[in-house]
Amino acid sequence: MDIMDVKENHLIKLIKRFEKKSTDIIRGIGDDGAVVKLKEGKYVFTQDGLIEHIHFEFSFTKPYYIGKKAIYVNVSDILSMGALPLYFLVTIGIPEKLTSTEIMDVYRGISAAAREFHLIMLGGDTIATNSDFLIDVSMIGILKTNKYLGRDGAKEGDFIALTGHIGEGAYGLKVLKDGVGKEKKTLNRYIKRYINPRPPFELWNELIKTDVINAMIDISDGLIIDLERMMDESKKSAKIFMERLPIPNILKRLSLEELALLGGEDFQLLFTFPKEKLSVIENIKRKGYVISIIGEVKKGRGVKLYENGKKKEILKKGYEHFNVEKL
Amino acid sequence: MDIMDVKENHLIKLIKRFEKKSTDIIRGIGDDGAVVKLKEGKYVFTQDGLIEHIHFEFSFTKPYYIGKKAIYVNVSDILSMGALPLYFLVTIGIPEKLTSTEIMDVYRGISAAAREFHLIMLGGDTIATNSDFLIDVSMIGILKTNKYLGRDGAKEGDFIALTGHIGEGAYGLKVLKDGVGKEKKTLNRYIKRYINPRPPFELWNELIKTDVINAMIDISDGLIIDLERMMDESKKSAKIFMERLPIPNILKRLSLEELALLGGEDFQLLFTFPKEKLSVIENIKRKGYVISIIGEVKKGRGVKLYENGKKKEILKKGYEHFNVEKL
Repeated sequence: MDIMDVKENHLIKLIKRFEKKSTDIIRGIGDDGAVVKLKEGKYVFTQDGLIEHIHFEFSFTKPYYIGKKAIYVNVSDILSMGALPLYFLVTIGIPEKLTSTEIMDVYRGISAAAREFHLIMLGGDTIATNSDFLIDVSMIGILKTNKYLGRDGAKEGDFIALTGHIGEGAYGLKVLKDGVGKEKKTLNRYIKRYINPRPPFELWNELIKTDVINAMIDISDGLIIDLERMMDESKKSAKIFMERLPIPNILKRLSLEELALLGGEDFQLLFTFPKEKLSVIENIKRKGYVISIIGEVKKGRGVKLYENGKKKEILKKGYEHFNVEKL
Repeated sequence: MDIMDVKENHLIKLIKRFEKKSTDIIRGIGDDGAVVKLKEGKYVFTQDGLIEHIHFEFSFTKPYYIGKKAIYVNVSDILSMGALPLYFLVTIGIPEKLTSTEIMDVYRGISAAAREFHLIMLGGDTIATNSDFLIDVSMIGILKTNKYLGRDGAKEGDFIALTGHIGEGAYGLKVLKDGVGKEKKTLNRYIKRYINPRPPFELWNELIKTDVINAMIDISDGLIIDLERMMDESKKSAKIFMERLPIPNILKRLSLEELALLGGEDFQLLFTFPKEKLSVIENIKRKGYVISIIGEVKKGRGVKLYENGKKKEILKKGYEHFNVEKL
């Protein structure tokens, strides 16, 4: 396959079609850079890449979903800062083994995920690689909260809360790796969560409107690791109650609690808020959203896990191949 | 080498040291995203990546200069739109073969290039790769001209001009590939241009102040290819006079004119301006800057080359492995 042919004949046309019209876009895809009108404000910048064999395998995830995921991981980062994602650019590294259909599917995935969040693509770069497929997305969003959220805002006495469930994505990947037989249907939920890890945008929207959140982080690298990062940056410690963790029953039955705690692949939001604002969060839960209060912010450092009142050790080794350190 | 160790022990600290203080940076490196205050304006976004074996070889370019070049290619794109670069993010893909010293050198190169243009690093991503080193930079700049420059503004009757010389970088790479003997000293200028392709920032600054430029593009993919892109987007044709092209004499003696026209690796600026504004450009030349008026914008499409009044064919094949299509 001649990568130049694919690009010049289809790709640029395809990508130009993705361009959403906006009066703020003065010059879109097709020049040395895109020109965009921005109003005065506080903006959040992220850049996060996925690379074959390190972050995904085509045997488990189709090209379309790789494209989606590259958008999702950046959307998740922007949301967790309290910002609404607006624009993105994407560098795609294409090895010869990829067919033009597969390349198109990646872009279709990018486009589908972009539409879900009303994002506009501004451009990027298409490069040939020797062996592995890669996709690197940069994104800009505008802050919707008075103060940015982020890792360093947790206050002593805050409740620690979590959206959705943990371990779904990591278990989905495990199922894909181990192979599934007849039970596939019941496991579909987990496989789907792994393959299509859409951030909880609607719930995020409810949360940031409340203006009670002190700190927020996405737990894509795993609850424990990301909670440790938050406590580190906030110079506090976390007391977590195992029995309150939203771990699906199937993982408990299979003794996969550690996978849920450390496996990553959850694009859920971890956040803290003052105890006296509990009713505000309870109001959101009453609308049908899944939020779990999993612990409290204390003096000191680190993450302390308790199970039925007894302290529990966390074995942190074993899942680090999932974990790619963020700058 | 354990990539995680390098990162957690040195890299983040090193990178945090790069952080320039600015009152506009509300939250810098170390969170899910950076938070930056932006004033109302027109901003330019670029994203451009370099990958080992495709864009460079470590045998020709040291890690420090790979870091610099990744910044330069984006700075060049931002400048050519008429914007001043401000902030950037960087994704680095690190294969196991790289030593921690080499990784540090890449970051030192990034930092050095950033300082040259007063750029501030906002963050990014460090990922492991299986075999090839890669570096992908996204950048944002603010428009300094009333209208953006870019590829689509060339007007019929404009003069076509070029900063600096062409073929220096491509010839430097050729020298490195072919190997050099005793003549190395005289060839150093070309090797340096290849290895350290700093965009002509000071000259750019003089040019954009004049407010006479209609179109601008950087010629990193080669004069002919980038000129064709400009004519395509401007819906015009270019009449170029071979004898006016700023090709170094050594390339002419070696009959390497085609390398100069098609080899790429020149981070020079190609621009057009109305004929009646020639004196404005001549004034800049009198300050000691190298600018060549190489042709004129005409009706029609494409690039037409003339040598001493006679039309010349352009053989475009042969250098396309240098050419990575921009979206």
